Amino acid sequence: MTDRINMTHGGGGRAMAELIRDVFHKHLGNAMLGRGDDAGLFAVQKGRMVMSTDGHVISPLFFPGGDIGSLSVHGTVNDLAMMGAKPLYLTAGFIMEEGFPLIDLERIVWSMAQAARAADVQVISGDTKVVERGKGDGVFITTTGVGVIPDGVDISVANVAAGQSIIVSGTMGDHGVAILSKRENLAFETEICSDSAALHGLVADMVAAVPEIAMLRDPTRGGLSATLNEIASATGVGMVLDEGQIPVSPDVAAACELLGLDPLNTANEGKLIAICPRDQADTLIATMRAHPLGQKAAVIGATIADPAHLVQMETTFGGTRIVDWLAGEQLPRIC
Amino acid sequence: MTDRINMTHGGGGRAMAELIRDVFHKHLGNAMLGRGDDAGLFAVQKGRMVMSTDGHVISPLFFPGGDIGSLSVHGTVNDLAMMGAKPLYLTAGFIMEEGFPLIDLERIVWSMAQAARAADVQVISGDTKVVERGKGDGVFITTTGVGVIPDGVDISVANVAAGQSIIVSGTMGDHGVAILSKRENLAFETEICSDSAALHGLVADMVAAVPEIAMLRDPTRGGLSATLNEIASATGVGMVLDEGQIPVSPDVAAACELLGLDPLNTANEGKLIAICPRDQADTLIATMRAHPLGQKAAVIGATIADPAHLVQMETTFGGTRIVDWLAGEQLPRIC
Repeated sequence: MTDRINMTHGGGGRAMAELIRDVFHKHLGNAMLGRGDDAGLFAVQKGRMVMSTDGHVISPLFFPGGDIGSLSVHGTVNDLAMMGAKPLYLTAGFIMEEGFPLIDLERIVWSMAQAARAADVQVISGDTKVVERGKGDGVFITTTGVGVIPDGVDISVANVAAGQSIIVSGTMGDHGVAILSKRENLAFETEICSDSAALHGLVADMVAAVPEIAMLRDPTRGGLSATLNEIASATGVGMVLDEGQIPVSPDVAAACELLGLDPLNTANEGKLIAICPRDQADTLIATMRAHPLGQKAAVIGATIADPAHLVQMETTFGGTRIVDWLAGEQLPRIC
Repeated sequence: MTDRINMTHGGGGRAMAELIRDVFHKHLGNAMLGRGDDAGLFAVQKGRMVMSTDGHVISPLFFPGGDIGSLSVHGTVNDLAMMGAKPLYLTAGFIMEEGFPLIDLERIVWSMAQAARAADVQVISGDTKVVERGKGDGVFITTTGVGVIPDGVDISVANVAAGQSIIVSGTMGDHGVAILSKRENLAFETEICSDSAALHGLVADMVAAVPEIAMLRDPTRGGLSATLNEIASATGVGMVLDEGQIPVSPDVAAACELLGLDPLNTANEGKLIAICPRDQADTLIATMRAHPLGQKAAVIGATIADPAHLVQMETTFGGTRIVDWLAGEQLPRIC
């Protein structure tokens, strides 16, 4: 049984050392991983760093537009980018289920390596654990990243105030619909792909053009609704959105209709929300649209003074409704 | 069902936000976590940093001498300490199984907070995911840490050469035997406790007294045998150990006898191996014995030139045997 993960691969002995060498170092290898130390080492300059972690339990592991390997790089890179940081180094902790095919593991690690290279980050340390069959589900990956914040950049939910513009970088709901379609074996005329992507390049352009950006956030689990409500309740502002301005692709809109989903509650993995001073919104939109990941960027609303910090939306039918966040779970294990 | 984890706790909506506030922030809270950003931010000085990650899947979650919460702090702090670093910040990723009792989660997070405070590190960012019943096992915690290496410190497996002394900081096998006893419901006259502890204070004293320490490593999974073999094969030296000098507590020795375990293959979570120039060994031992976590420190052998990079041991019976590392798994899910 050398074609599947077994308990010895988590035992700290020779089988684990061979797995690390033959799968992890083979694809993710760099000078630091090669040293064989317990931790990765890197030089830093005086300044500000950010650190963020993200566990990935997505099901299925492979989906249109990505897999858990690329997603686990994008997810963490994006959390760093949302602070305006340049991501530098990642670590990856794998929790594997006994019986998981090694060929799938290698495909995932390979994909992770490609995504890391594309995002110009290095995986400098890792960990592997194995749990018994039925105590896990294939593979879970927790990635943690560090990055540096350029001098002068200050992006935080603490900067949000009334009278600012709310912008999204593109269509909402692609990731969630792609996962659900795959999970339910739904065949649409056009395959809907996850938008999974690393956003730090887009963010670098945005910050260079508009250093006054108040905050950035990626609307992942819970989608746009949850993220905006989270911001509203953290800052105490209210929001008014214009439904007609929120980009949703026709395929995703049709699939959501069919599946009974609201694209605003549906997860994204390659989109961001930006809040910026109203007089900078046009400049920011122009900058975003010039980047491949921001071509459909749009101003979707504004922050307002509202002691109830509600997120309201003017609908395309001319009414107004409250955009609440779901108490519960729309789609489990979406990331 | 508000007394157990359910799928909504991982959904990115209101239930997750409340769980984070009422359990995680309540115990781990600090100024950075409180900001509510996607990543933790910290200031750095020019220098060298290290970063390490460790997934924790230990079963049972609560054991004599600790629990998965304290262990997940100690494990990562120790990986940083083994590079000679002062640990600074941690992130924690929780993967929880549907149905896990919230009271147990809170106990674990509380314990994590206590361990972090004792080790003078802050948990500055975190993540929670929920998987369906039967797709996980209670809770898995992946902690990642960063720390700074003081100027002049250079500890790495790359410094190991023939003719150096091999030192351990205390008794071998306590953690593994404690876990197995708990798992198998074995009652010994004296309860055997895990040695789970944060070693960075001991390391700071050691590095201050003997800056020439070649390398440090904590013998966790696979125990002393696996760790020494890993070092030997990474560096190409051989090793000769003196069995009579390797500290093993009488209780652990008796339990190992009964359970058919070798204490040298059995996991530790609060012990380290140091390799240093032979003429510094006495100074290092004296320094270690002056620290509460190094009272039983001992020189257990030496590195030698050996193209086969074997780890040999002179036994208490006067013979010599090869200390091999296990191909497989002695005790699954020991950390």
